[in-house]
Amino acid sequence: MKRYLETIRSEEAIAKILEHAKPIEDEEFLLTYLCTGRITTRPVFAKLSNPPFLCSAMDGYAASFEKTLDADLTTPVSLKKNVDVFPVNTGDPLPGGTNAVIMVEEGEESDTFVIIRKPAYLWQNVRMVGEDIIEGDMLIPRNHRIGAFETGMLIAGGVTHVHVRRKPAIFIIPTGKELIDIYQMSDETIKRTGLVDFNSYFLLRLAEDTGFLAEKSKIVFHKDELRNIVQEAVEKYDGIIINAGSSAGSEDFTESVIRELGTLIFHGVSMMPGKPTMFGIIKGKTVFGIPGYPVSAAISFKTFFEPLYERLSSTQLHKKYVTCITPYKIPSRIGIEEILRINLIEKKGKYYAFPLARGASIFSSMARADALIRIPEHIEGYDEDEEISCEMIREGEEIGRRIHIIGSHDLSLDILRDMMKGRHPHIDLISTHVGSLSGILAFRKGITELCTTHVIDENEKIYNIPVIKKYLPDSPWTLIHIAKRLQGLLVGKGNPKDIKDISDIARNDVKFVNRQFGSGTRILLDTMLKGKGITKESINGYEREESSHTAVGILVKESIADVGVAIYAMAKVFSLDFIPLVEEDYDLLVAKEFTEDKRFHLLMDLILSDTFKGKLNEIGGYHTEDTGKIKYVNG
Amino acid sequence: MKRYLETIRSEEAIAKILEHAKPIEDEEFLLTYLCTGRITTRPVFAKLSNPPFLCSAMDGYAASFEKTLDADLTTPVSLKKNVDVFPVNTGDPLPGGTNAVIMVEEGEESDTFVIIRKPAYLWQNVRMVGEDIIEGDMLIPRNHRIGAFETGMLIAGGVTHVHVRRKPAIFIIPTGKELIDIYQMSDETIKRTGLVDFNSYFLLRLAEDTGFLAEKSKIVFHKDELRNIVQEAVEKYDGIIINAGSSAGSEDFTESVIRELGTLIFHGVSMMPGKPTMFGIIKGKTVFGIPGYPVSAAISFKTFFEPLYERLSSTQLHKKYVTCITPYKIPSRIGIEEILRINLIEKKGKYYAFPLARGASIFSSMARADALIRIPEHIEGYDEDEEISCEMIREGEEIGRRIHIIGSHDLSLDILRDMMKGRHPHIDLISTHVGSLSGILAFRKGITELCTTHVIDENEKIYNIPVIKKYLPDSPWTLIHIAKRLQGLLVGKGNPKDIKDISDIARNDVKFVNRQFGSGTRILLDTMLKGKGITKESINGYEREESSHTAVGILVKESIADVGVAIYAMAKVFSLDFIPLVEEDYDLLVAKEFTEDKRFHLLMDLILSDTFKGKLNEIGGYHTEDTGKIKYVNG
Repeated sequence: MKRYLETIRSEEAIAKILEHAKPIEDEEFLLTYLCTGRITTRPVFAKLSNPPFLCSAMDGYAASFEKTLDADLTTPVSLKKNVDVFPVNTGDPLPGGTNAVIMVEEGEESDTFVIIRKPAYLWQNVRMVGEDIIEGDMLIPRNHRIGAFETGMLIAGGVTHVHVRRKPAIFIIPTGKELIDIYQMSDETIKRTGLVDFNSYFLLRLAEDTGFLAEKSKIVFHKDELRNIVQEAVEKYDGIIINAGSSAGSEDFTESVIRELGTLIFHGVSMMPGKPTMFGIIKGKTVFGIPGYPVSAAISFKTFFEPLYERLSSTQLHKKYVTCITPYKIPSRIGIEEILRINLIEKKGKYYAFPLARGASIFSSMARADALIRIPEHIEGYDEDEEISCEMIREGEEIGRRIHIIGSHDLSLDILRDMMKGRHPHIDLISTHVGSLSGILAFRKGITELCTTHVIDENEKIYNIPVIKKYLPDSPWTLIHIAKRLQGLLVGKGNPKDIKDISDIARNDVKFVNRQFGSGTRILLDTMLKGKGITKESINGYEREESSHTAVGILVKESIADVGVAIYAMAKVFSLDFIPLVEEDYDLLVAKEFTEDKRFHLLMDLILSDTFKGKLNEIGGYHTEDTGKIKYVNG
Repeated sequence: MKRYLETIRSEEAIAKILEHAKPIEDEEFLLTYLCTGRITTRPVFAKLSNPPFLCSAMDGYAASFEKTLDADLTTPVSLKKNVDVFPVNTGDPLPGGTNAVIMVEEGEESDTFVIIRKPAYLWQNVRMVGEDIIEGDMLIPRNHRIGAFETGMLIAGGVTHVHVRRKPAIFIIPTGKELIDIYQMSDETIKRTGLVDFNSYFLLRLAEDTGFLAEKSKIVFHKDELRNIVQEAVEKYDGIIINAGSSAGSEDFTESVIRELGTLIFHGVSMMPGKPTMFGIIKGKTVFGIPGYPVSAAISFKTFFEPLYERLSSTQLHKKYVTCITPYKIPSRIGIEEILRINLIEKKGKYYAFPLARGASIFSSMARADALIRIPEHIEGYDEDEEISCEMIREGEEIGRRIHIIGSHDLSLDILRDMMKGRHPHIDLISTHVGSLSGILAFRKGITELCTTHVIDENEKIYNIPVIKKYLPDSPWTLIHIAKRLQGLLVGKGNPKDIKDISDIARNDVKFVNRQFGSGTRILLDTMLKGKGITKESINGYEREESSHTAVGILVKESIADVGVAIYAMAKVFSLDFIPLVEEDYDLLVAKEFTEDKRFHLLMDLILSDTFKGKLNEIGGYHTEDTGKIKYVNG
């Protein structure tokens, strides 16, 4: 089954778009003070000199300098007011016959005279006609962006109206029977009946951020409706986005609408995410079908609508690229361009790229990403320690002052993040949840200076210290205690499967959900299974791995799994039942170097605060008696 | 006479402002999709998982995987539609009892059955509940800027409304009897009666660019009116700008209004421009008096309102600083901080700083500047070749691809600039008018690769070549002819002083206006005066120097001078009379290296075009027979 026209490379796709999109030629005659950010379509010439006449540069007395030449300290000159001398304020036109202004401090004014004790010179304190702007001067050329200062200069030059390029306008049409508009529904309706359309809202904002004028339609469910809306929209907008209906399902009618109303130019681009993008021309206007998966829609937008905007508006966007280093191998399929979301960690002026979840449906990672990297189709990804270029999708300034924790997941990290942003709005605390062991390995590699961990040593039955000493025997580090927390079995409300202890997870009628390899919780589970002599194979669902406590929680809550190992807090958050297993130490591993960083002290202030401990105790399942204590100092 | 309260340093002034300005605590509960760019005041938690239920990741057939286990290529399994198997589209909720989705391409569908030839596995093509967002997750902390992607994530998480910080609002009040609102007047009224208020318009845009919500009042003429407006405004806005009335003239009532309604904190900052800035508190709101000279107003705004914005909004502005090199000594007065507007020239990855006109009234140079440099009060300026930091006031990307000509002024440069921007919107052609000789010296120093010149050699009577060879005997350069142009005496319409030739400028009843030292026109004049045996001292106005043909033109037009030397085009532009003196060669000196730059070829295309020649001929006084010819190649 053929799903697409011939798939083309993204560069070719962009070339085809640029070939068909024509720069906006229309002009508008707008009030100058409303034109900030707009681009001129004609050169602008001054209609007025600034200043338009000789004027006083000071508060003082205008006079003819010739009449003051004899003045000195001992033989002052008296000038008759409103005959020889005229009181003027800054900016006043020079009265006829005068050619100098004496500062107000240098004249002794009485009712009828002003006494001067110093001669003036020609044009003293006088602003020349046109000293700023001369009538007829070209103030700005065409294709020039009008900023705040240009606005001032144009008005100073007597320009009340300017010809500027109309903003390119796009129209976003969400389609799909599964979609619902959250602003029209109650929470309960949404949960039961459909997926929230958020694509059209973020596309609207993305389009506006790019520079487009953007509007969206309501959700469209039927092909005829879509055809009508598109037909009307091409009369009014420069670009149309149909989202989605671009793949091959029974309701994917975007392609046929484009074909019926105009010409389809391409359908299918060899990039991932974003492959099912299509492009056509209807009545000279650009019409796109972009994929429904939100990350695909975002990548498709950035790939194709940024060049489109530049073409339509005859401007260049200021995209920011940064060189970063791959901390480990990043594999990619050959034959297709792959675009990855990454977080950047800055260490000693260098940026390290950490790819986020690749799934096209994981939109939250788009909101958490700092940048995008593009892996070309002809390579199988990047090796460890390669230098690659990434495109920033947020301001880069915050990265350097951010606190980045890699390691084990706990709710306390969210609490600390919010508290940090509350006290220090410019310092974000972000965490990458790779599990305790992977965190320690990243720490050893020098990628992170902070790692959260809860790993029990099988023999010594001590948390964290033995394991960290094993991996980091010589390097200098400090271990800070965050909290003791209760781990246990998370089961449905009322414990429907009557689970009593760890042995029950191997029962045939029980579906288990596991945590990922390398996480402290997984190590705990495996240690306990070994103790009980339970084999992995006997557990129904052992191979289903999730990477956070909350993911385990939601699967149990939705009865997709019957049981999983998680912290007590999850039982409270999701109103589930909980069978305690152990109390463990959740600790923070800190590189010695970082203990001298100002941010470490800000973080410690938070950890030691009563607010933090209070919030943990409010959630429950934590013990905070030793919170903030230094447990061990190595090297 | 005491004009100010004790003057304080700008850092102290900023500290005092921050001490009195309180972060905005108010919150608003806004529709999430309208919150792009806003800052949260509370952490935001997901109200909904995304997806909120198990759903199909593909178009296909939902089934229980257990029922497909026996399928293979030769022994297919038939599943009954709407009993064992359910057609689903991407995003549809999984029907009860199913736990896998078979791709549409892998099922053979008939009216009642779907035939499967491959076993499915548990959760195949199924999106897990919460795989993107889990109900209860903290999506963003407080003090977080909501971008387009955050908007999407929040709506995906069921968040329809968010608490965000109100935008700080400021109110701009233009005051001054000399001011007129250009939108209320005819051109003629303006020319005769007052100065156009453009400060309030550019301040409005500058405030909005900074992030404020900004509004302005009409022009205020009387103290009582100002008091009333300020009294009302402090109820509604977070900051008030009164512009100006901050110095010491008879109408400067800003200080007394602040004193009457609240407390004056400081008046006078030891910075230039911007010295007469004042700051006070009225009913807890910040009130500023900022200077009337437009550059002073702009510098005062940037110095004090950017930190104020950061404080009020609890955010940090992303200001961009660049290191640049001083190509020559930049003197500055000790004891006062001086802020200069500069243009940057990029050469081989290094930026060179060229200060623009310092006058506080020359606002056009604010619109032409790339950046600002601050010279601290304790130094006497910068030496040649110092590395200093400058603050960008426009996007820096365009600087590297710009064409920068230093040298002699001619209208052809404006024509070329506009043509270049028309054909190549991203390439600006800017020119710094320092005169021919200073241009050649800048070229020799390696600061510019392009210099326009028209210098006659006194002995050989040849233009440009002998002089350039003298200064640049060994370096490789090319001389391109732009046009022959007529220089002559510019006199009033009808030649009221009956000037016949160069000798007449020495007459007692004639006021002359000169060009600056080092300009080709000045060299021409001095050469001709020498030839006629006329002394400089005998010329009334010889010491009055202007730096462009247009400046000479406007002074003659306004009868401020009776005569000056300028190109014929000025007579046409200003409707003046013209007495021809010589026809000279206006040429472009190009460094050999730059002849290999793509931009040189774009520039040559323009110079050689019929459009360019046509425009010169339309202005008049030019001969374009040899336009674009290579006149000389050195080295």
